[in-house]
Amino acid sequence: MPNSFGKLFTISTWGESHGAGIGVVIDGCPPRLPLVAEEIQAELDRRRPGQSEIVTPRKEADTVEILSGVYEGRTTGTPIALWVRNQDQRSSAYAEMADKFRPSHADFTYQSKFGIRDPNGGGRSSARETIGRVAAGAVARKLLASLGEHAAVEIRAFVTQIHDLAIPDGTLVAFPSLADVEASPVRCPHPATAAAMVERIKAVRSEGDSVGGVIECRVRGLPPGLGEPVFDRLEADLAKAMLSLPATKGFEIGSGFAGTRLRGSEHNDLFETRDGVIRTATNRSGGTQGGISNGEELVFRVAFKPTATILRVQSTVDVQGRAVELQGKGRHDPCVLPRAVPIVEAMTALVLVDHWMRDTGQNRSFAL
Amino acid sequence: MPNSFGKLFTISTWGESHGAGIGVVIDGCPPRLPLVAEEIQAELDRRRPGQSEIVTPRKEADTVEILSGVYEGRTTGTPIALWVRNQDQRSSAYAEMADKFRPSHADFTYQSKFGIRDPNGGGRSSARETIGRVAAGAVARKLLASLGEHAAVEIRAFVTQIHDLAIPDGTLVAFPSLADVEASPVRCPHPATAAAMVERIKAVRSEGDSVGGVIECRVRGLPPGLGEPVFDRLEADLAKAMLSLPATKGFEIGSGFAGTRLRGSEHNDLFETRDGVIRTATNRSGGTQGGISNGEELVFRVAFKPTATILRVQSTVDVQGRAVELQGKGRHDPCVLPRAVPIVEAMTALVLVDHWMRDTGQNRSFAL
Amino acid sequence: MPNSFGKLFTISTWGESHGAGIGVVIDGCPPRLPLVAEEIQAELDRRRPGQSEIVTPRKEADTVEILSGVYEGRTTGTPIALWVRNQDQRSSAYAEMADKFRPSHADFTYQSKFGIRDPNGGGRSSARETIGRVAAGAVARKLLASLGEHAAVEIRAFVTQIHDLAIPDGTLVAFPSLADVEASPVRCPHPATAAAMVERIKAVRSEGDSVGGVIECRVRGLPPGLGEPVFDRLEADLAKAMLSLPATKGFEIGSGFAGTRLRGSEHNDLFETRDGVIRTATNRSGGTQGGISNGEELVFRVAFKPTATILRVQSTVDVQGRAVELQGKGRHDPCVLPRAVPIVEAMTALVLVDHWMRDTGQNRSFAL
Amino acid sequence: MPNSFGKLFTISTWGESHGAGIGVVIDGCPPRLPLVAEEIQAELDRRRPGQSEIVTPRKEADTVEILSGVYEGRTTGTPIALWVRNQDQRSSAYAEMADKFRPSHADFTYQSKFGIRDPNGGGRSSARETIGRVAAGAVARKLLASLGEHAAVEIRAFVTQIHDLAIPDGTLVAFPSLADVEASPVRCPHPATAAAMVERIKAVRSEGDSVGGVIECRVRGLPPGLGEPVFDRLEADLAKAMLSLPATKGFEIGSGFAGTRLRGSEHNDLFETRDGVIRTATNRSGGTQGGISNGEELVFRVAFKPTATILRVQSTVDVQGRAVELQGKGRHDPCVLPRAVPIVEAMTALVLVDHWMRDTGQNRSFAL
Repeated sequence: MPNSFGKLFTISTWGESHGAGIGVVIDGCPPRLPLVAEEIQAELDRRRPGQSEIVTPRKEADTVEILSGVYEGRTTGTPIALWVRNQDQRSSAYAEMADKFRPSHADFTYQSKFGIRDPNGGGRSSARETIGRVAAGAVARKLLASLGEHAAVEIRAFVTQIHDLAIPDGTLVAFPSLADVEASPVRCPHPATAAAMVERIKAVRSEGDSVGGVIECRVRGLPPGLGEPVFDRLEADLAKAMLSLPATKGFEIGSGFAGTRLRGSEHNDLFETRDGVIRTATNRSGGTQGGISNGEELVFRVAFKPTATILRVQSTVDVQGRAVELQGKGRHDPCVLPRAVPIVEAMTALVLVDHWMRDTGQNRSFAL
Repeated sequence: MPNSFGKLFTISTWGESHGAGIGVVIDGCPPRLPLVAEEIQAELDRRRPGQSEIVTPRKEADTVEILSGVYEGRTTGTPIALWVRNQDQRSSAYAEMADKFRPSHADFTYQSKFGIRDPNGGGRSSARETIGRVAAGAVARKLLASLGEHAAVEIRAFVTQIHDLAIPDGTLVAFPSLADVEASPVRCPHPATAAAMVERIKAVRSEGDSVGGVIECRVRGLPPGLGEPVFDRLEADLAKAMLSLPATKGFEIGSGFAGTRLRGSEHNDLFETRDGVIRTATNRSGGTQGGISNGEELVFRVAFKPTATILRVQSTVDVQGRAVELQGKGRHDPCVLPRAVPIVEAMTALVLVDHWMRDTGQNRSFAL
Repeated sequence: MPNSFGKLFTISTWGESHGAGIGVVIDGCPPRLPLVAEEIQAELDRRRPGQSEIVTPRKEADTVEILSGVYEGRTTGTPIALWVRNQDQRSSAYAEMADKFRPSHADFTYQSKFGIRDPNGGGRSSARETIGRVAAGAVARKLLASLGEHAAVEIRAFVTQIHDLAIPDGTLVAFPSLADVEASPVRCPHPATAAAMVERIKAVRSEGDSVGGVIECRVRGLPPGLGEPVFDRLEADLAKAMLSLPATKGFEIGSGFAGTRLRGSEHNDLFETRDGVIRTATNRSGGTQGGISNGEELVFRVAFKPTATILRVQSTVDVQGRAVELQGKGRHDPCVLPRAVPIVEAMTALVLVDHWMRDTGQNRSFAL
Repeated sequence: MPNSFGKLFTISTWGESHGAGIGVVIDGCPPRLPLVAEEIQAELDRRRPGQSEIVTPRKEADTVEILSGVYEGRTTGTPIALWVRNQDQRSSAYAEMADKFRPSHADFTYQSKFGIRDPNGGGRSSARETIGRVAAGAVARKLLASLGEHAAVEIRAFVTQIHDLAIPDGTLVAFPSLADVEASPVRCPHPATAAAMVERIKAVRSEGDSVGGVIECRVRGLPPGLGEPVFDRLEADLAKAMLSLPATKGFEIGSGFAGTRLRGSEHNDLFETRDGVIRTATNRSGGTQGGISNGEELVFRVAFKPTATILRVQSTVDVQGRAVELQGKGRHDPCVLPRAVPIVEAMTALVLVDHWMRDTGQNRSFAL
């Protein structure tokens, strides 16, 4: 099921950029969770176009409807179908795309694989598909507040780098608050850097160009024990989740690529007991060891390439392979990262809930 | 199934560092593939301990036996069970580990998750588990030579960085040959860098310490169309495959993290027609667009941390949380990368075969 | 994913009896299949309430909408979301059910499992859920007409027994035509028996009671090779498919339970060559041997219990376990079999398409 | 994964009739379960050839070895690999089978599907494959004794019919004890019927023929709540499990096919409160309603055809389709049912443990 994600808490997304809308079906959701559309909407609003001056100015309300699985304000344990109707309809704006392959887009590969593609707004390859993930992620996040004896799990993603502008090393050690992140439209919790990032995005946009960057995600309050030995390691499933997002080119956890330059004696996280709990003195592991959470903060980063759609003339080929030129137009994000922050959080929540349920299923089902 | 990988070409590994051995069951293998144990052994020998002066001197032959699924030298389409008997038996060498948590190992997290663990050699968390992956990967590689009209697919992984020693930018543009890679025990195809890496590993080992690095993997000859939209993107499944390997901390494809510093106008891969085939002029995408292979070379990199086991005294805690000291001993790899090269190739082959079969199943089953 | 079915051609259904509607997402559908809503509607109309004098008189149009996955009249290989809006809204008719457990319904078990349930019309346990199966099955049936060199696969289900009225042995040997089946509202292709069945159903309904029966399903034109050794035998997946339907109590293939009374020498199907093709002289196997189709007609039967809802007073308990009486009311099917015929066909089509794709994926992906 | 079964408690079997042996890997087993090989062996001994005068006289010890997943007598939560070495080696006895298709065996369909097959003893299609199921089932049964607050779950299968000899209606109402079942080599707990069955099997064997029959399985102590709405109903998964066994032709639960002749008013199971617990007055449902266990006894029956191998001359075709004769020889079971009893129990245990873990994972993971 290429359009499904998760083993016990499973989501299946459907829908294209244009047409009836974008939907998601959540299967396996625990019953009795209080749930109203407004809670889901709040997360969708963080992902919505038109929310600030540095994202696409398209006006799409992206209003979610709960079609099933909730009775009198609580989940019933049966599939939760969520739907966001599209407001844009199929338009002449994409007529050119039916014939020409946009550089670094999915047009050519979809055509190669399926022998057919919906060119309107990229069809299924549109980033609008992530609406379903964010909607489902909102449900997962609510669950993470009900982890029994464990304190609530908090997930916080934020932008650490845009183009060549990065939060200076060592200036951000604490766990940023949601307010810190939301304080700037670029969702970087370091105010000075954020201000520079906003200016950079505006400048690049004015040139019809685009930029990428890096999002970091941290999770605290996670108990030890999530993740599986071998293939379904927590970081493996997080890596898959992140690389399944449009425009992503890399993933690293803990010390990541930089950690390859350390020696073992510098890199190892020594155990110690703090407040009666076994902890590590440092966290170069990034919250997992042997693929399983160790109770420390989960810390990982995701690389996003610059938006492929630019408002310039680019050379490409048409469906017959003839050299042509393509003039980018429309209202696009010059930088996807600000809107990707809630998407990264949503995918994280989905992975964590699924692993929590798997862990319970295997390790807490029997009185052993 | 936390110990299984793949949807149609599925492997399930079992076994611990000590005890009866390490095994793998391949389910869904196409029938009629010629297969003898020697072909699998050849790949295992590249992963074997004691193969060179810079890896662990442990003497383990790691001889593979085919227990099922092959009849008169050909696969039958039924499960192929492969087994490598362990030569080391449970020993007193690990007595200390039963009580103490090794820093940056899986001891603590396994204990937290399962409430029990096999301390001998790390039990299931031992890198010996990857024997099963390499054995199964050898079968997958053979299949990739039978992709119908398509030229044989070639997979080549190699070390590009050890500690702070990296192949200089721009000195390695072509697709290295197997001989280039195997020319040095460190499996870096750039001779001068390789020589320095070997010296570094020896020096670090003599200090009882360890180092990490980066492996790059390239695949050529891959047809367009492998990978799925949305969750099972080719790069997502590769990222999962790589982050499921012990000691990995990062994955990037194509331009990766460095690409986040480019503009869209610099990053986009423009289409052109070469020799009658639609190609891209550059390959910052790294061989996939929209999650699906585009016929260009697949290029990705994997970060490995320095080996956690070091031959030094480290402070840690015991099972009761009491502060203790642990003296590392035994014969360990001061750097896992040379032996990880065939493992990266094996996981790549597994992902590609699985996606090829999935693509055929969906897109070439019916006369449409 | 408890609400999904199939490995490569996967459906996920959602929705309840009352509320927004019933939906299904088809994932993995081959691309380029011509598809319009009318083709799906035709199958839904065979399942629709109010279609004849012996089914529930509820007036529900059950109109299907295609929400995604189709572009310019052809499938794109991406998820096909289908939706049938409910016309009945939540009503006071089910107020009583919120407190009382209907005998032989799912009220008690849903409450036990989930601690919550939607009592309106049975919520998720309503037979309306099968709308999604029939809609998806219509797509699968279209695919079965495109099996490459193989003649079109034909699936025909029909009623062979209602209450104690059965088609006399030996009077139905050929493959009934669709017209034969549809000639009677009870969907029994033996006219005399069909007439008696219709009268029986009317008589039973007038007494506020209900009856069950048996549906037989035959498939011809199926090539050899579908089904897997061991767990995913074709008959195992068919059995699961049929027992997943509401009100089913049994499944048998070929000689079935009656075959247990034969000797091996009477039961074995001897091979012979007819018209240059290896065939069996008899078909007690029912079209599969060793779990894999052998090219003969697939023949299986499904037992349906009498409808649980009867228009009589029954004793039961309420949610607190107190003895109460429940008066059945509303417009229900006195016999589910006539409307279950297209549902059985749909599930059969789903199983066959999935196995065809799996077989191609494993056995025809490589040039071996 | 055609050779795997179960979602959370998953088994993967491998191996052929001849060659290295038969194995199974259990993935997802809860940790800390005490487990020694002898417990598994006890179940295998009930399945073993040569155990009585009415089964095949082949002498195979079928000794199980635990290769992984157990440390100091307890499961570790990692894969448990079990292996039974074959004692019979590839022999000339099967030379004839390499060319001729045995009637009602899997020879023809395997050849059609895979284009290759291992003819020795039927290769993968041999009933020896069920060794892996019984071994894994023994582990599952142990788990069912640890269902927390619930009393131990007991599973009891037994033979109710051989050829036309059946336990008379109404003479077996209670839950037979294991001693009752094991009292006769035919494993029918009704002594007079059992004696007649033994004589029938001997008589049929003396004629070189074979017979089939029916096995009933009952489970008591099962809590309400196992099974899923819609596709993964408990009876659907049981039906799949049973139809995945060699020689099975039918499955029915509760009233089964006979129940189709009752009216709803006769068939419904009325709820009542007994000893403070909500129960049903009758159990025509057979222990599930809406696909979910209701706390009553689980009761289902499985039809087995007469053994396909008979010691007679049968006409068939060879691989080229030429008419030939085949003389059955060797030491075969004239009736598979006595040895199938522990296999039915094993598959039942596997289904129940898996559903219990799934239920916990979804419904008891969060504090809701």
